[in-house]
Amino acid sequence: MAEKRYVLKISCADRPGIVAAVSGALLERDCNIVEAKQFEDVIEKRFFMRVVFSGINGQNSLREHQEAMTPLAQRFEMDWSIRDCETKRRVMILVSRFDHCLVDILYRKRIGELPMDLTAVVTNHAAENYAHLDLCGAPLISLPVTAETKRAQEDKLLELIERTGTEVVVLARYMQVLSAELSARLSRRCINIHHSFLPGFKGAKPYHQAYERGVKLMGATAHYVTDDLDEGPIIEQDVERISHSDSPEDLVRKGRDIERRVLARALRYHLDDRVLLNGHKTVVFPD
Amino acid sequence: MAEKRYVLKISCADRPGIVAAVSGALLERDCNIVEAKQFEDVIEKRFFMRVVFSGINGQNSLREHQEAMTPLAQRFEMDWSIRDCETKRRVMILVSRFDHCLVDILYRKRIGELPMDLTAVVTNHAAENYAHLDLCGAPLISLPVTAETKRAQEDKLLELIERTGTEVVVLARYMQVLSAELSARLSRRCINIHHSFLPGFKGAKPYHQAYERGVKLMGATAHYVTDDLDEGPIIEQDVERISHSDSPEDLVRKGRDIERRVLARALRYHLDDRVLLNGHKTVVFPD
Amino acid sequence: MAEKRYVLKISCADRPGIVAAVSGALLERDCNIVEAKQFEDVIEKRFFMRVVFSGINGQNSLREHQEAMTPLAQRFEMDWSIRDCETKRRVMILVSRFDHCLVDILYRKRIGELPMDLTAVVTNHAAENYAHLDLCGAPLISLPVTAETKRAQEDKLLELIERTGTEVVVLARYMQVLSAELSARLSRRCINIHHSFLPGFKGAKPYHQAYERGVKLMGATAHYVTDDLDEGPIIEQDVERISHSDSPEDLVRKGRDIERRVLARALRYHLDDRVLLNGHKTVVFPD
Amino acid sequence: MAEKRYVLKISCADRPGIVAAVSGALLERDCNIVEAKQFEDVIEKRFFMRVVFSGINGQNSLREHQEAMTPLAQRFEMDWSIRDCETKRRVMILVSRFDHCLVDILYRKRIGELPMDLTAVVTNHAAENYAHLDLCGAPLISLPVTAETKRAQEDKLLELIERTGTEVVVLARYMQVLSAELSARLSRRCINIHHSFLPGFKGAKPYHQAYERGVKLMGATAHYVTDDLDEGPIIEQDVERISHSDSPEDLVRKGRDIERRVLARALRYHLDDRVLLNGHKTVVFPD
Repeated sequence: MAEKRYVLKISCADRPGIVAAVSGALLERDCNIVEAKQFEDVIEKRFFMRVVFSGINGQNSLREHQEAMTPLAQRFEMDWSIRDCETKRRVMILVSRFDHCLVDILYRKRIGELPMDLTAVVTNHAAENYAHLDLCGAPLISLPVTAETKRAQEDKLLELIERTGTEVVVLARYMQVLSAELSARLSRRCINIHHSFLPGFKGAKPYHQAYERGVKLMGATAHYVTDDLDEGPIIEQDVERISHSDSPEDLVRKGRDIERRVLARALRYHLDDRVLLNGHKTVVFPD
Repeated sequence: MAEKRYVLKISCADRPGIVAAVSGALLERDCNIVEAKQFEDVIEKRFFMRVVFSGINGQNSLREHQEAMTPLAQRFEMDWSIRDCETKRRVMILVSRFDHCLVDILYRKRIGELPMDLTAVVTNHAAENYAHLDLCGAPLISLPVTAETKRAQEDKLLELIERTGTEVVVLARYMQVLSAELSARLSRRCINIHHSFLPGFKGAKPYHQAYERGVKLMGATAHYVTDDLDEGPIIEQDVERISHSDSPEDLVRKGRDIERRVLARALRYHLDDRVLLNGHKTVVFPD
Repeated sequence: MAEKRYVLKISCADRPGIVAAVSGALLERDCNIVEAKQFEDVIEKRFFMRVVFSGINGQNSLREHQEAMTPLAQRFEMDWSIRDCETKRRVMILVSRFDHCLVDILYRKRIGELPMDLTAVVTNHAAENYAHLDLCGAPLISLPVTAETKRAQEDKLLELIERTGTEVVVLARYMQVLSAELSARLSRRCINIHHSFLPGFKGAKPYHQAYERGVKLMGATAHYVTDDLDEGPIIEQDVERISHSDSPEDLVRKGRDIERRVLARALRYHLDDRVLLNGHKTVVFPD
Repeated sequence: MAEKRYVLKISCADRPGIVAAVSGALLERDCNIVEAKQFEDVIEKRFFMRVVFSGINGQNSLREHQEAMTPLAQRFEMDWSIRDCETKRRVMILVSRFDHCLVDILYRKRIGELPMDLTAVVTNHAAENYAHLDLCGAPLISLPVTAETKRAQEDKLLELIERTGTEVVVLARYMQVLSAELSARLSRRCINIHHSFLPGFKGAKPYHQAYERGVKLMGATAHYVTDDLDEGPIIEQDVERISHSDSPEDLVRKGRDIERRVLARALRYHLDDRVLLNGHKTVVFPD
């Protein structure tokens, strides 16, 4: 009988005995710990843990594992989840004019780098812009937004998210600011790529701001969306070296490379349950 | 007769014929171009050039080269300089409590990485803190600063700068803000290391700000001092990857490594005449 | 009348007067130097230069510029070329099983990052593997290779290269070793991506070699193809940090990201005439 | 009563129950896990763990912790150690002509970055070369080596290592190859900085080799010394970007910066018990 793998994610107030209790409970059900990483925030006194375990003879179902963990989780007041590593998350991608992040995610999905099912690609632009893309069978939905239609279109979007069972929403250079209500509804499961190195250059045209300021490094930031624009918990960042001879257009070009790789990494970390929230910061256990 | 090398630095409004005129003038005096880099800011229509040349039979003195270049410089309304590559610049270092940048510069000077003479090390702390350091014969001068004594101490500092023929002032983690007057007097020749990646975290305790914000990369910035604090033209920046498991103290430790290498690079670029000002930005021709 | 831009590439034995002669010749024809970079290899006594210039009133054609430069080129025994910046190079891509580099180049071409026309995509695998890709109208040609058919297939390939006017051949993870004859025919215009950091791990399965050796950084190398396998002049390299927890499969995944960005950079440098050969090394003038 | 911290390091064949047993044993003695990282090499079926724990009421001594762990260690056939985090390791530094790594380690020790006591600085050059350095009270011992005296000098060195209770030996650009016997005696506690990116350029003058080959990145490698020269388990590596315009001397200068930071990181990892051996590779749990 084939071995199955599960990923357990825990955060709770730090106190003695958590690791012993968790590892004891897994041992009791003949589960083997394949990977484990933990972190104690000594300032906030909070504990974070990610465990990949396998059922040695595979007889336990996900539900059984969840039930077995429940008393422990209650005892330590854990924020927790268990997921079957084989179960792919359902992901929706929102995109505007620039499609480099979308194309990159589609490719990584196709070759198996990103364990996800695509529920839909939504754009506020015309659908025909993306007609040449292979969306792996997912529908392409155009929801143009104006100040007047914003609320109605967000309602449609939310309805679509719920109807398709979307678990993760990716803003892949989607240039519309989500309303506070929608941000709240998508809390902890909506990832944005901010096309600059936060907190350096917030707001519009950050690469032009970087050019004006003459910085020597330029970057991108992937973060969870909150109602505080550009201030959500940061998941991943990266930079590249630039120089005086880079025009604003060169910066935009270099930015595309950084954006797509930062967003892809952040999304993979999220899909692999490697990101835990710690207040307005994240704990990321990379592979 | 030994060959001598000179470095010529030019910036001026861009118009046709500059390179032909400069290279023709050098050829006429039997000088050979060893290195040349140029840049045209097509937005601002400004031209920048750095040329290292050698007198083929070495008979031209620095003064002769300067005289020969003068008509050309007037014709193109150049901001320019020529320097004998063998002539070391006279450098003063200002330091406060943390001495990692000071120690690093002293070491690089000793092994010949930084072509400079040290005129003095000035601190606003007690001189005995630095008693164990080998200052290469330079005096250590303590100028403690309070709100009341600031003006008087800056006068002393300026007098010292002038008396010692100091050409470059390095703020090597000097934690006093220079007055607008002094900043103006040291315009284009005073280099500060800002212990963060600008424009991200300005002001005090940037590493603690970075910790609070949960960023995934942390950096340092070397810039020319202007009267606009933390906003002077940026010469060099660098970053390192950090994670949730870095405490504020870890960030300070990692920061020391970034600060000292960014400041050393910026200082070397300046000493080698590799930095040209372009408004509130720089053009840097690295080696 | 619109201004036209040209790129001039020069290498020759170093001697006085080259810059003066070139810039003087351009000035004489009312051309303006937009960008210029030069390098003197003081050990080999060789001079390298790349100049982008524009005809001020645009009346000179490419042929006129070439004719005007010819006497100069002869006088200094230059290895040289002039190209109209608007003229796209004709590129053929060769690919085997893995298509990440191919897909990346196609995307960059589509959005205008790579100034090229695609003449064909050639694979030694079955054509249907690539059927889902948008090849911008270029034909997909399958030329399977065995020990017996290698010479015949290379003849077909060469015939195809010539018939299509292909100027640049990109081995985008093409897993066949070119014969010495074909390498020689494609000298200086065939770019390979070596999926490791040379000279570290040559030959087959370099990521598995890197895993076995326990290195902490892993990279990729783009180089010109010569008959000395894995030893051609290096154009570009990059690395990423890895750790003990990366499996061989993780290294392959991380490798894909490095490979595609290193190859894309090398190709862009080549298409922009930024790469000059210096014996078995390159001089690269990046933007 | 003050809390004390201990670091526990374990490697053993992987089997179920290790984490539960270790965390249970710590909990039983009222110890709290402050940090824990573990890794399972799924190919070699080996388990690695590093735990920092604190005695909640501090009544347990190091000896008591060691005694309590012993039965567990025997049961799982662990390769293990426990160390009081406050106890500094005793370190000897060996150096030849170039002192940049030595100076860097001394500075980091002085400001508290490296938790170590210095037992001696040993050089095969004349002692007066280092007379200006502040060795924190440690003796400077000159042991010049020739082919004839090598064995005798190594005997003296080993006697010195034993007499001074040296636990860690750092080859800080020490240009003598240790004999197989001495390498074996210092197994797992002698760190070398190889002044190149292994396995790229082994042997002498690697920066000149890198120059000749025209590579675009250059690095340094810190590794444990074994009798297989340049092939010991790698602890840390880093690179910097270089270009055609870097002379061999520029590479040596840039190399100094990489060498000192790679060696300092590797030494700190070792002093903090962050490095575990896995055959001829390492598992490094960085902070």
